[in-house]
Amino acid sequence: MVFGNMGETSGTGVVMSRNPSTGEPGLAGDFLVNAQGEDVVAGTRQTFEIDAMAKRFPEAYQQLCDIADKLERHYRNMQDIEFTIENGVLWLLQTRNGKRTAAAEVRIAVDMVDEGLLGREEAILRVSPEQVDFYLHPQFDETARKEAKLIAKGLNVSPGAAVGMVAFDADTAQRWARDEGKDVIMVRPETKPDDVHGMLAANGIVTSRGGRTSHAALVARQFGKPAVVGVEALEIDLNDREARVGDMAIREGTYISIDGVRGEVYLGSLPTVIPDIQDAWLTRLMEWADEFRTLEVWANADYAEDATRARRLGAQGIGLCRTEHMFFEEDRLPVMQEMIMARNHVDRESALDRLLPLQRGDFEQLFRAMDGLPVVVRLLDPPLHEFLPDHMELRRELSELKLKLQHFDTLREIDSTLEEIRAKQDFLERTEELLESNPMLGTRGVRLAMLLPELTRMQSRALFQAAAQCMREGVDVKVEVMIPLVSEVNELKTQRQIVAAEAAQVMDEEEREIPYKLGTMIEIPRAALMADVIAVEAEFFSFGTNDLTQTTFGISRDDAESGFLIHYLEHGVLDDNPFQTLDRKGIGRLMRTAVQLGRETRPDLEIGICGEHGGDPKSVEFCHDIGLNYVSCSPFRVPVARFAAAQAAIQAAGWQPMPPAPRDPKARAAKAKKATAKQAAS
Amino acid sequence: MVFGNMGETSGTGVVMSRNPSTGEPGLAGDFLVNAQGEDVVAGTRQTFEIDAMAKRFPEAYQQLCDIADKLERHYRNMQDIEFTIENGVLWLLQTRNGKRTAAAEVRIAVDMVDEGLLGREEAILRVSPEQVDFYLHPQFDETARKEAKLIAKGLNVSPGAAVGMVAFDADTAQRWARDEGKDVIMVRPETKPDDVHGMLAANGIVTSRGGRTSHAALVARQFGKPAVVGVEALEIDLNDREARVGDMAIREGTYISIDGVRGEVYLGSLPTVIPDIQDAWLTRLMEWADEFRTLEVWANADYAEDATRARRLGAQGIGLCRTEHMFFEEDRLPVMQEMIMARNHVDRESALDRLLPLQRGDFEQLFRAMDGLPVVVRLLDPPLHEFLPDHMELRRELSELKLKLQHFDTLREIDSTLEEIRAKQDFLERTEELLESNPMLGTRGVRLAMLLPELTRMQSRALFQAAAQCMREGVDVKVEVMIPLVSEVNELKTQRQIVAAEAAQVMDEEEREIPYKLGTMIEIPRAALMADVIAVEAEFFSFGTNDLTQTTFGISRDDAESGFLIHYLEHGVLDDNPFQTLDRKGIGRLMRTAVQLGRETRPDLEIGICGEHGGDPKSVEFCHDIGLNYVSCSPFRVPVARFAAAQAAIQAAGWQPMPPAPRDPKARAAKAKKATAKQAAS
Repeated sequence: MVFGNMGETSGTGVVMSRNPSTGEPGLAGDFLVNAQGEDVVAGTRQTFEIDAMAKRFPEAYQQLCDIADKLERHYRNMQDIEFTIENGVLWLLQTRNGKRTAAAEVRIAVDMVDEGLLGREEAILRVSPEQVDFYLHPQFDETARKEAKLIAKGLNVSPGAAVGMVAFDADTAQRWARDEGKDVIMVRPETKPDDVHGMLAANGIVTSRGGRTSHAALVARQFGKPAVVGVEALEIDLNDREARVGDMAIREGTYISIDGVRGEVYLGSLPTVIPDIQDAWLTRLMEWADEFRTLEVWANADYAEDATRARRLGAQGIGLCRTEHMFFEEDRLPVMQEMIMARNHVDRESALDRLLPLQRGDFEQLFRAMDGLPVVVRLLDPPLHEFLPDHMELRRELSELKLKLQHFDTLREIDSTLEEIRAKQDFLERTEELLESNPMLGTRGVRLAMLLPELTRMQSRALFQAAAQCMREGVDVKVEVMIPLVSEVNELKTQRQIVAAEAAQVMDEEEREIPYKLGTMIEIPRAALMADVIAVEAEFFSFGTNDLTQTTFGISRDDAESGFLIHYLEHGVLDDNPFQTLDRKGIGRLMRTAVQLGRETRPDLEIGICGEHGGDPKSVEFCHDIGLNYVSCSPFRVPVARFAAAQAAIQAAGWQPMPPAPRDPKARAAKAKKATAKQAAS
Repeated sequence: MVFGNMGETSGTGVVMSRNPSTGEPGLAGDFLVNAQGEDVVAGTRQTFEIDAMAKRFPEAYQQLCDIADKLERHYRNMQDIEFTIENGVLWLLQTRNGKRTAAAEVRIAVDMVDEGLLGREEAILRVSPEQVDFYLHPQFDETARKEAKLIAKGLNVSPGAAVGMVAFDADTAQRWARDEGKDVIMVRPETKPDDVHGMLAANGIVTSRGGRTSHAALVARQFGKPAVVGVEALEIDLNDREARVGDMAIREGTYISIDGVRGEVYLGSLPTVIPDIQDAWLTRLMEWADEFRTLEVWANADYAEDATRARRLGAQGIGLCRTEHMFFEEDRLPVMQEMIMARNHVDRESALDRLLPLQRGDFEQLFRAMDGLPVVVRLLDPPLHEFLPDHMELRRELSELKLKLQHFDTLREIDSTLEEIRAKQDFLERTEELLESNPMLGTRGVRLAMLLPELTRMQSRALFQAAAQCMREGVDVKVEVMIPLVSEVNELKTQRQIVAAEAAQVMDEEEREIPYKLGTMIEIPRAALMADVIAVEAEFFSFGTNDLTQTTFGISRDDAESGFLIHYLEHGVLDDNPFQTLDRKGIGRLMRTAVQLGRETRPDLEIGICGEHGGDPKSVEFCHDIGLNYVSCSPFRVPVARFAAAQAAIQAAGWQPMPPAPRDPKARAAKAKKATAKQAAS
């Protein structure tokens, strides 16, 4: 035994070999004179900053610095060291890799490369993609957090910072959030499928029971809601509408703040800050990552604004521009509806003619933003009924109008209402005509284009005219036209001909060559199974892994993620949500086959994925493994994907992340003590 | 040139070497004295039966018999021979394989085996599966048909005999057929997607325009409606509501009869007869077929009555018993609805307890009917909302009830209506809770069973209790429990445990071993891709090719078959409707992989398919090729499948169907003439 409470020449402390918040070099920690370790941990006595030790025990302090340095060199990682000074002699009790913030992790990794402790590969493997993601999301202001009242801690099951008023049930949460525009944190003993609407409406979720695979945890991760679960100190009284922690009572409607990374719940509304993505250390780390990775990272962006942001975050192209989003805008939707309601070719063409310049303008902006980089434009994908009012709503409105008819006093009123009824009736009829029992497997994507080739013609014309205009301005335009939902090569063949004819005509009119590629989404199992045949007509593939997962798994995502899929994750039937992390075992087999078959036909086939999986590190690793050219993800996930791609490349080259320090703290302590004893003896 | 009109010692005729209607041996045909061939064909002069020639030109007749015999031996097929007698000398003008009825084809094939002209393999290859199918459907009575007034001929695009009143548009067809219960034949210049509802309601379809891949032809084949298209003689006047052929005017509402095999339209309502499936020649042919085939043929049957019929038609097992059909019956549906509406475990168990004996009774009957043969029982498959009233209908009824509230005179009426509203409201809420945006990919099959394991328990208990009861009676019961919609092996593992536990308990109670197999449908691409893993838990696979086609192709059948799929078939984007004929290129690849992977894990894995494809000859051939154990189809398709399976086995062994006689009739005629000249000279 060693004693730190042997008087004023003794003491005890805990130091980190570097600053665990910022990663700055130099010891950081707490120190107490004439005390044992438990006094530091218990927080009953006011501790001193470690600098104080330098003055009081200069020799021991120097020794501690040297040992910390030695331990760091041995473990090649920042150390968390407990020590005691007994009558002036330094004794180490324990050392282990220290906990640290994302910012510290990044800086330490980079610094250690500069110090020759780590290779760049190791530095990259040591930082997790989630730590890179940290730089992209609001976090609680550190000073404010330190001053805030911590209510309780629980399990950190879904990251992020959220602030809102406590709501104790789903209906209240939904009413306050959706109808009244308030910020809400839903607080429940536990959640069930009935609660999902409230969870969706809330900014964050807290439960007093449940673990990492509880319903609340799963749903929260699903929808990217910060959540803290299993906050056992919280006693929720649904009758009295309050939660109690010890003596404190939190009434419904009280503001709280939750930190999903730390698993903490605070009283009040904490201010948030967004970390600096331009952080010098992160920038260097990302530069190294970019050197190692072979997989490109593109982004999904529909507007020039998104494209610009993506480019700033390192995107090397646009992997998915969803053209339909352009049609949903206020000034365009009525024209789109006119196109859909058209009962003859002439009316349809007239509506399309009016859409053309609008769409062309969108494309021009996109091309300018992506000057020099490829832009994959997907032709219209959703079923037409998505552009029309909801048929249930129409029915309800019609009923109301009919009821009104009975209470008018003038014929004029009746006539005008009859007119209104007729118009709505037309809409309803068309909507019901377009209704499908399984729209996900229905008339959309290329199927729609096969029925309405004039749509493809209009979109192609807009695309090539925009390209010509930008080229005139000196912009380097790289167009890739993408046909969605192909399941049969003849679909692609037909559409290819339509696009090519339109392209030729525009080139002729513009007196200019416009180079472009034509390719297809691979999002239907049959397309993947017949990739060798499809590749005859396609210059590139882009896996639509969301739809591919839906069809290959036979799961409708919208229905399942608030239904049986949660049950499956809760009960371990599935390890991961296949819509978040690519299902390697099943969907992965199919993708591997498709890549192999596609490149048998066309060795230089460009293959990427677009869809959420492109921003998921595990999925990015898989995409690297099967030899894709790029992943395309949402702009905010681009840095994460770049980093994950680098890790995948490094690991594929045989590098493994450093094994963690040995688990048994006694073993570690013994080892450290030995080192110390030697040091002390020397 | 040869002349048959050189006087009374000359003549001309057309004979078949056997009777083309029945296949009976002996010449059959027409003969005219002092006439040219065109006189026979034109039908302007009354011809004589060929027997008359025997009396008039005994020598030439004998010669003709000998030549017919010789030609048959040469071509090994029934011959259609044109001849002329010029001044007593017989000249053959042409010979070719003769057209014949299905019955004649069967009899001739069997007779020719007996005569040593054909091997049994060739006989089987010569008859088409469609000709076997002929014996299973109503046909127009031959005598009545001969006497009926033939209106016109067109293309025979969809087989079968149909009778009904002419309706000139889809709405009329639907109103008469659906609302007034009349028999209708829809007659249109051509059809469009808007007409599908009328086509579905009608017994048959006639169009004056269009070919074999016209919309009308495709839709008719799709839904098994007899149809004759491209009846050019028919002039349809939609304004006057009549069709004209020459001088004849057919008013809307007139009865006509159409023969989809012959492409004929008759005036009036012709009586139909069902051919005798016990026909002596067919029976022999089928016996031979059964000897050659290695693929077993099972049937899909939900009731004992269907099972018995299937067995009579040669089924070797039940490949699919859909247990849900039992719940749709009038006395059971309310209990099923109670189960679904139950908000707690106790109420749910109580409803299930009442369903148990009913289900057990159904199973007992099925086992007795299939004594000694396997019965594959599929546990509950459809989503729950299918057992509840339609939510749109409920909404409408609720609105009506609410409107009624305003017009009552007594509180009692109001109270009783409020009660009714509350009950409907409950139904509506539950229905809307269960509503899914893509029910095909939703909570059904094993997914439902995972959420409601008590369902699996009840069904298993009913099954094993029924088996025990039948075994006590001396019935040889072979139970196979099938889990639907599996996409992940853990689903199967969980359900297997539930079934096994229930089985063990029943066996314990009954003090009797009940052997059974447990297996799964393969109807989700992921299950096929992971068949090696799935096979660890499955003793058998049954491809659900309908759902597998839907998911692998990403097509919702209900929506597509009245939508874009027809367009695809019309425009040659797809060669076949993948829901009728298995898509070998795409789905087939996946099935082949699944068979291979499954048997890697479990070499004795029993694999079959259930679903319509099991009765489609081309699909049966594919199932033979990939080494399935059986196909299971609807009872009425069993003979066709048996026959197709034999053809597949024979072809796989290297046999090819006889090449048709040379195409060029002149070449044939020259060849025949040469033979004749020799004959005549000898």
